[in-house]
Amino acid sequence: MTAPIQDSYPDNVAICYGCGRNNPHGLHIETLWDGAEGVCHFTPQDYHTAFPGFVYGGLLASLIDCHSIGTAIAAMYDAENRAPGTEPEITAVTANLNVDYLKPTPIGVELVLRARIEELSPKKAIVACSLYASETETVRGRVVAVRVPSRATMGQEGQ
Amino acid sequence: MTAPIQDSYPDNVAICYGCGRNNPHGLHIETLWDGAEGVCHFTPQDYHTAFPGFVYGGLLASLIDCHSIGTAIAAMYDAENRAPGTEPEITAVTANLNVDYLKPTPIGVELVLRARIEELSPKKAIVACSLYASETETVRGRVVAVRVPSRATMGQEGQ
Repeated sequence: MTAPIQDSYPDNVAICYGCGRNNPHGLHIETLWDGAEGVCHFTPQDYHTAFPGFVYGGLLASLIDCHSIGTAIAAMYDAENRAPGTEPEITAVTANLNVDYLKPTPIGVELVLRARIEELSPKKAIVACSLYASETETVRGRVVAVRVPSRATMGQEGQ
Repeated sequence: MTAPIQDSYPDNVAICYGCGRNNPHGLHIETLWDGAEGVCHFTPQDYHTAFPGFVYGGLLASLIDCHSIGTAIAAMYDAENRAPGTEPEITAVTANLNVDYLKPTPIGVELVLRARIEELSPKKAIVACSLYASETETVRGRVVAVRVPSRATMGQEGQ
């Protein structure tokens, strides 16, 4: 995949603060999926601090979350032999987010996240994701992603 | 405690994007500790969306994280019969953050977080935290907080 999976999300729901391309205030997290791994590159802003010199843990959790969901959605399209964005839309939300902070993550360098599918079924994925700063793994997360009806209708359904 | 625990953090390190009073871009999460429970009130911005009508999960994880750490620090001062801000400074960082998203959290209402200490030792706390929207629990988290040397020196120590 040469475009981020997030580019395939429908316009009217691409407003996620983490990864929505249509949220002007958001982080614009992008997931590139190569069929086996989801990769994300992200450089925190200088105000995304925890304490002097290190990245805020809530931002790191947000990166793990959105990137793992993006990876899950990309893998679900693959499993159905369909291109992202084809109908019916595949989307998923986070049921559980578990993050281990292995060591402080330095600010001022590009972070790289690598996510892999641990389990995949038509309705659920478990994604393992590691975050690296200058090739050192500083954070490791796991996301349980649950497939849901199209986000465009979720407001109505209260899902 | 009538002032948020975050008010006691030293000026030069109160720059956390989540809860630092000196981070002008930050969320300014505040924890009030009554000796048994940490309480936090927070109203998301209208751009803190996941999808239309609901709050971004990464923000919810950030709230759980900072509020649980604040609760852990307040409880650690209590356990030493000391007021927050007295020397030596007590601080802690997150070793593990585990968040269950029970149901979507509606945007547009004030959220309330209630955190309780599950385990406390001189060097570690485990904090359970529930997040409510209009009195409905929508998110439940658990944080493992580890006491560390003063944040003012953490940059030097690489901790």
